[in-house]
Amino acid sequence: MFTVKRIGTVFNDRKEAEDDYWGSIVSVIELEDGFGADAIEGLDAFSHIEVIYLFHLVPDDKVQYGSRHPRNNTDWPKVGIFAQRGKNRPNRIGATIAKLVKAEGSKIYVSGLDAIDHTPVIDIKPVMKEFLPNEEVKQPAWSTELMKDYWE
Amino acid sequence: MFTVKRIGTVFNDRKEAEDDYWGSIVSVIELEDGFGADAIEGLDAFSHIEVIYLFHLVPDDKVQYGSRHPRNNTDWPKVGIFAQRGKNRPNRIGATIAKLVKAEGSKIYVSGLDAIDHTPVIDIKPVMKEFLPNEEVKQPAWSTELMKDYWE
Repeated sequence: MFTVKRIGTVFNDRKEAEDDYWGSIVSVIELEDGFGADAIEGLDAFSHIEVIYLFHLVPDDKVQYGSRHPRNNTDWPKVGIFAQRGKNRPNRIGATIAKLVKAEGSKIYVSGLDAIDHTPVIDIKPVMKEFLPNEEVKQPAWSTELMKDYWE
Repeated sequence: MFTVKRIGTVFNDRKEAEDDYWGSIVSVIELEDGFGADAIEGLDAFSHIEVIYLFHLVPDDKVQYGSRHPRNNTDWPKVGIFAQRGKNRPNRIGATIAKLVKAEGSKIYVSGLDAIDHTPVIDIKPVMKEFLPNEEVKQPAWSTELMKDYWE
């Protein structure tokens, strides 16, 4: 068992968990008290950041440990919880690469972050090309279908 | 304050933390008891997975909260802990996209994972193209220099 602390909070207009249409959402991540502008000094030299956060509203009894149909859609195969990115997962961790709009003081403005208002952030990392796949990414058809309207 | 539990453990030949030369390391992630093969059912349809883990050997007094020179190299600018990917970070979370070699029972074989032997894993997610940057990734020169031998 390990403990993690909130290092920041997401603020945006998405008040409730919804599956799709994250494309227009702009978020600001405000660092917790105790973190100053020096904690993100130089971040604006990167175009993208990875935001690690918690799906904090998922109750214990919704967490999946085995397999299920993504979004409970039986058109798609039953796959393990670690073979999908749904929120009802052990440890409730989300990790998304977002586009950095600007960093100002202890606030970070991003687009393309699929986290709702008041989401606790537990880490922020700059995206480097060397940490992205350098071979073709292959994925099953169901995941491509699932993502169709995600960033619309 | 939130708690997270180990969902798996990394096993490989890298016994101590070293900065570079991760290229040849092949790792197996063994899921904890309580997770069966169903937790990763269908994972092998993906070419890459994101592994979220803990830099468990970093002591409290080494954690950085402000800025420092990456790898303490003064040739590179002082940047905030959230503007670098070093291990001495709040919450000690690592997140790396690795290449899936195979998934077998409750074991996942990967290459390109920069985690040492016995690292606790706290989440595994499949990589989907839609979660990768769809615009050019820009990063400062120091980060490109730092990564030069990382995957050698």
